[in-house]
Amino acid sequence: MIIKVVNPNTSLEMTALVERSAKAVAAPGTEVLAVSPAMGPESIESHYDEALSVPGLLDEIRAGEESGVDGYVVACFGDPGLDAAREVARGPVVGMAEAGMRTAAYLGRGFTVVTTLSRTRGRTWELAERYGMRDLCRGVHACDIPVLELEGDALDVVTAACARAVEQDEADAVVLGCAGMTDWATPIAEAIGVPVVDGVQSAVLTVQGLVEMGLRTGKRDEFATPLPKRYTGMLRDFGY
Amino acid sequence: MIIKVVNPNTSLEMTALVERSAKAVAAPGTEVLAVSPAMGPESIESHYDEALSVPGLLDEIRAGEESGVDGYVVACFGDPGLDAAREVARGPVVGMAEAGMRTAAYLGRGFTVVTTLSRTRGRTWELAERYGMRDLCRGVHACDIPVLELEGDALDVVTAACARAVEQDEADAVVLGCAGMTDWATPIAEAIGVPVVDGVQSAVLTVQGLVEMGLRTGKRDEFATPLPKRYTGMLRDFGY
Amino acid sequence: MIIKVVNPNTSLEMTALVERSAKAVAAPGTEVLAVSPAMGPESIESHYDEALSVPGLLDEIRAGEESGVDGYVVACFGDPGLDAAREVARGPVVGMAEAGMRTAAYLGRGFTVVTTLSRTRGRTWELAERYGMRDLCRGVHACDIPVLELEGDALDVVTAACARAVEQDEADAVVLGCAGMTDWATPIAEAIGVPVVDGVQSAVLTVQGLVEMGLRTGKRDEFATPLPKRYTGMLRDFGY
Amino acid sequence: MIIKVVNPNTSLEMTALVERSAKAVAAPGTEVLAVSPAMGPESIESHYDEALSVPGLLDEIRAGEESGVDGYVVACFGDPGLDAAREVARGPVVGMAEAGMRTAAYLGRGFTVVTTLSRTRGRTWELAERYGMRDLCRGVHACDIPVLELEGDALDVVTAACARAVEQDEADAVVLGCAGMTDWATPIAEAIGVPVVDGVQSAVLTVQGLVEMGLRTGKRDEFATPLPKRYTGMLRDFGY
Amino acid sequence: MIIKVVNPNTSLEMTALVERSAKAVAAPGTEVLAVSPAMGPESIESHYDEALSVPGLLDEIRAGEESGVDGYVVACFGDPGLDAAREVARGPVVGMAEAGMRTAAYLGRGFTVVTTLSRTRGRTWELAERYGMRDLCRGVHACDIPVLELEGDALDVVTAACARAVEQDEADAVVLGCAGMTDWATPIAEAIGVPVVDGVQSAVLTVQGLVEMGLRTGKRDEFATPLPKRYTGMLRDFGY
Amino acid sequence: MIIKVVNPNTSLEMTALVERSAKAVAAPGTEVLAVSPAMGPESIESHYDEALSVPGLLDEIRAGEESGVDGYVVACFGDPGLDAAREVARGPVVGMAEAGMRTAAYLGRGFTVVTTLSRTRGRTWELAERYGMRDLCRGVHACDIPVLELEGDALDVVTAACARAVEQDEADAVVLGCAGMTDWATPIAEAIGVPVVDGVQSAVLTVQGLVEMGLRTGKRDEFATPLPKRYTGMLRDFGY
Repeated sequence: MIIKVVNPNTSLEMTALVERSAKAVAAPGTEVLAVSPAMGPESIESHYDEALSVPGLLDEIRAGEESGVDGYVVACFGDPGLDAAREVARGPVVGMAEAGMRTAAYLGRGFTVVTTLSRTRGRTWELAERYGMRDLCRGVHACDIPVLELEGDALDVVTAACARAVEQDEADAVVLGCAGMTDWATPIAEAIGVPVVDGVQSAVLTVQGLVEMGLRTGKRDEFATPLPKRYTGMLRDFGY
Repeated sequence: MIIKVVNPNTSLEMTALVERSAKAVAAPGTEVLAVSPAMGPESIESHYDEALSVPGLLDEIRAGEESGVDGYVVACFGDPGLDAAREVARGPVVGMAEAGMRTAAYLGRGFTVVTTLSRTRGRTWELAERYGMRDLCRGVHACDIPVLELEGDALDVVTAACARAVEQDEADAVVLGCAGMTDWATPIAEAIGVPVVDGVQSAVLTVQGLVEMGLRTGKRDEFATPLPKRYTGMLRDFGY
Repeated sequence: MIIKVVNPNTSLEMTALVERSAKAVAAPGTEVLAVSPAMGPESIESHYDEALSVPGLLDEIRAGEESGVDGYVVACFGDPGLDAAREVARGPVVGMAEAGMRTAAYLGRGFTVVTTLSRTRGRTWELAERYGMRDLCRGVHACDIPVLELEGDALDVVTAACARAVEQDEADAVVLGCAGMTDWATPIAEAIGVPVVDGVQSAVLTVQGLVEMGLRTGKRDEFATPLPKRYTGMLRDFGY
Repeated sequence: MIIKVVNPNTSLEMTALVERSAKAVAAPGTEVLAVSPAMGPESIESHYDEALSVPGLLDEIRAGEESGVDGYVVACFGDPGLDAAREVARGPVVGMAEAGMRTAAYLGRGFTVVTTLSRTRGRTWELAERYGMRDLCRGVHACDIPVLELEGDALDVVTAACARAVEQDEADAVVLGCAGMTDWATPIAEAIGVPVVDGVQSAVLTVQGLVEMGLRTGKRDEFATPLPKRYTGMLRDFGY
Repeated sequence: MIIKVVNPNTSLEMTALVERSAKAVAAPGTEVLAVSPAMGPESIESHYDEALSVPGLLDEIRAGEESGVDGYVVACFGDPGLDAAREVARGPVVGMAEAGMRTAAYLGRGFTVVTTLSRTRGRTWELAERYGMRDLCRGVHACDIPVLELEGDALDVVTAACARAVEQDEADAVVLGCAGMTDWATPIAEAIGVPVVDGVQSAVLTVQGLVEMGLRTGKRDEFATPLPKRYTGMLRDFGY
Repeated sequence: MIIKVVNPNTSLEMTALVERSAKAVAAPGTEVLAVSPAMGPESIESHYDEALSVPGLLDEIRAGEESGVDGYVVACFGDPGLDAAREVARGPVVGMAEAGMRTAAYLGRGFTVVTTLSRTRGRTWELAERYGMRDLCRGVHACDIPVLELEGDALDVVTAACARAVEQDEADAVVLGCAGMTDWATPIAEAIGVPVVDGVQSAVLTVQGLVEMGLRTGKRDEFATPLPKRYTGMLRDFGY
């Protein structure tokens, strides 16, 4: 089984981090392929960044379709391009926010999200609504650290933010709201004594499970393959 | 006052139609500028098309910012890139689905939407939820005519679909779910005796009103200008 | 085009204020007619006041129908009698809470409302629910100033309340919750750096837009003209 | 204990019917006083009728306060003036829609409402939302019989409508949506084998229970006594 | 009329307290029978306790069916086994949380709940959702006193918790969240000046009213008598 | 890793079926232990059956805790005793309805459920609400086959019900609503061309993933170990 994990930003260091995290939980027979698109922003911290990351992400999904990939993970907490990717891919596609929140939902009556910049919280609430997590998600908190600075001392800041969020929201679990935090779930959980969910690993295991059960996106209507048409003036040929 | 109406697909005939419709309701002192992006799909009928239309749309918003535009309309019923456009623009940005639904909300207790292809209905429901229209929107119906074939006899098909939708959903009003139907609101309303809302005109008048009142997107957090960063491998320079 | 703005209380000074505010945004060809009913309370600060303002309001709508009015604004933030007015009027009728909230919805992900007395907040939440604004409305705050004392220093108190409400609710915009605040949107917005929406102007522009597009209340069922029947013991003849 | 049941329309025959029905369930020590206001519509079948019935209703509540009434029932399925009445009365006030729906909620997972004219259904949904019954209320159905013609053969029509509604909505119970149907709950229940709830009796027993427990409307904010102010040009003196 | 009140825990002192409280409001002709099951936990303070109380509760309902009971009250604020009891009983069955919350809903726009241990709050929110009280219930607060220690000074602690909850939630009424608080509604209401609802009395009066109106659980589908089948290895014979 | 799958009814044939299905997807290193409790109903088709299955289920969870089980699956679509089991177990506990619905949520915008008897549908809706699946779950359909008769020709009946449900609800996927259908997902999916989700396999893979990531139920409040107390008159000792 091949799972392609697309980090939709172009920071290869983050892609390497995501790959290590994904491989740490994948089953022996599962091959994990982590990539960044050839085009797009170096980090995703706004609706603008998200929108501009999607063509590159879709390019990677299309490439994956040609090379026999069984399922995909979108490894950015805004889940950019998820619905479009589902139209393109034959196999399942899972976003890390989607998987992170649904995984946390198994751990109690409510969870809280700790993310990077304050301005991204609106998107998280929008996704929570879309995924049926509006009531289960008790709060979305920013630690005000940019995506590309999630290293070193930042762990302490994020740990403290998680502890505060749990108290404030009376949450049973925490969801980490950025792929750049993917290796911090265990140290934070140990520090605060509450389960902490990483969306990257959650998404990898979810895709692996879906493929194992032979499940893929329903294609009878909304998520059918895009219709063939002309795409003008774009760097790549996106037409069907 | 200059209002820029962006038809996010690349079909210039549709842009011309949208322009006529927008100008028909704009106040004397309002200049309407209708454009298509230089890149993108010829029509938008999937999440994939929508995603690929957004970079071109954002390019037009950025160009508008340099040329003194006061407000923007996104003239596609999927409201693609709306949140990103709000980050980029200083003035207000209004989507045609958003404006169409909210306008219909003034006309009774519930409305129904008649759109093109069945596969686009999921997106409409998602927008309805986002705009607080989940309960006011009673149904979303497809007439199974592709966006670029909305002409000639198609009017009869759409009129019949509207009549059926009103009966089935016991709706007080109809919202037309495609910019390509922008000149059909009046003939359909006359045929079925129920108010019919066109989102293009609704959005133009909404932006005009917002500018008149000096209102623009709140910029204190989520919709602040995108942060400066590197965008790699893209046809245009999207960096700030 | 004639738009009749009904201030449902009997304080003529407030009606004059509302008229100035309405005329400031109406298009050149739009005639604005602002009135108070001949009967009713001097201010509206309870469900009781609201209920007692409605017969006078409906009387004004009926009079408007006889004199060729194209559309109506209900200029009290409780939107009293709105549904009944829609049954009576041929053209569109828009409430200032309805228009204020929907206008604010175009300016970000969430707004906050600042109103007069604490006891009126329940009605605002009820209206938010009715208009699909339950999630977009982040909070309703009182400044504890009675309607008829909204002048002079009260502006400072309301400005401070708006600033606090924005911080507390992390709101992108403010809606002013009383017609008596109609000329304060601009000074408050300038003071706090956040868009501030006045419902009176929003409603006038909304009605103007609806009339411009030829849209009026759907009359096929709930909002059809009231049935002819006997009304007993009332000061005026309300029968059809 | 004195319970005053206000039929807000001016049809005395219906008031007599309501009185018989209320007395049939009241406890031995409970005195039931059924009245019609001196002013208002002969029946309530629109928002307009409802609005015009409220001043007369409030007049009756005020009179009740002077004569030692312990609690009130609003005996019209639109629950007109309920919030205003709660401000005026010291004791509890219960609407028949409110009581009918909440009573039905004890009888299973969902109920259906059968009412008179189609145009009144919107109001019922609005009340269901307000009372937290949006999910428990599965449907609202009209039998298209005007309020004042609910007699004789109409029982068969309503019975048939109830049977259809139960099947269509897979409901565990029926709520009758008009005070004029107050004596039909038992014959319809016997005919269709499903519990049928009459709101008049439900409201009387609810008020009786509230008074028995010493419970009354919370008066700390929204439902405090109306503020003293001037009411102009009205048939009666409504000022405090 | 015979109403059987089942206290689902095995603490007979609490059953005696519940009985006194129930009898204090029952009508003269109503016989109240309060019991504890022969098996189960001594108090209910977790999902585990609740689950283990249900077989004993159902045993008491079955016994009641054989001895002509007209209706039942489940006198534990978790409303354990309520749906199962409705399948077993011919007459109505009402839970004290259900009745307490719905009763409080008549007293204003929102209520707050004060309960025993923090860990039980999740269940209360789940019930609020089930009963359509999600919006009317403004908060659920623990006083951190175990069920069996609700006596003596505990009244002061609970009173203070009620006062704080009312302020914090801006509530019109309080619901006491434990059968062990059944005789505290009046002293707390007097102390804090806000109506305080006891679910035991509310449930008794609700069942009495349902029986008075001839209403019982709808039996056409979900709540029909359980199907006959084999139950293995249980202390009692639960088969039909 | 040891996963204990508890079929809460006492039909050993179904337990064997569930075990085969669970083992078919478990990873090589995962040991699956499928059991039936020593006490309880032979099948679960009512709230009554569910309630009576829970003590036996909890007994199995307690036994599992003593023998080093890492995680648990509740293999009945009513997810009986799930919250209580989470209090008792150190590791994660997942219900098959919960896992089935959340898994289906990854496959499109909405799913439909096909279950056994009509009377069980209310419970499914209740669970959908609890799990945040109220909007994603488009419908719940019965095939009117009792749990213990799900064999032979029943597959054709269920397949036809699935096909109808997909059309009627315009669903992207189907969830099978009974553990007794656990081996039918693949043949039905092949017959109707739509993804079909089995909750047993979904739950096994979910628990396996949770254990792999080191995640378990949050124990800081609601789901802490039950408090020690006396349980009277029960077949087993349930005290802590």
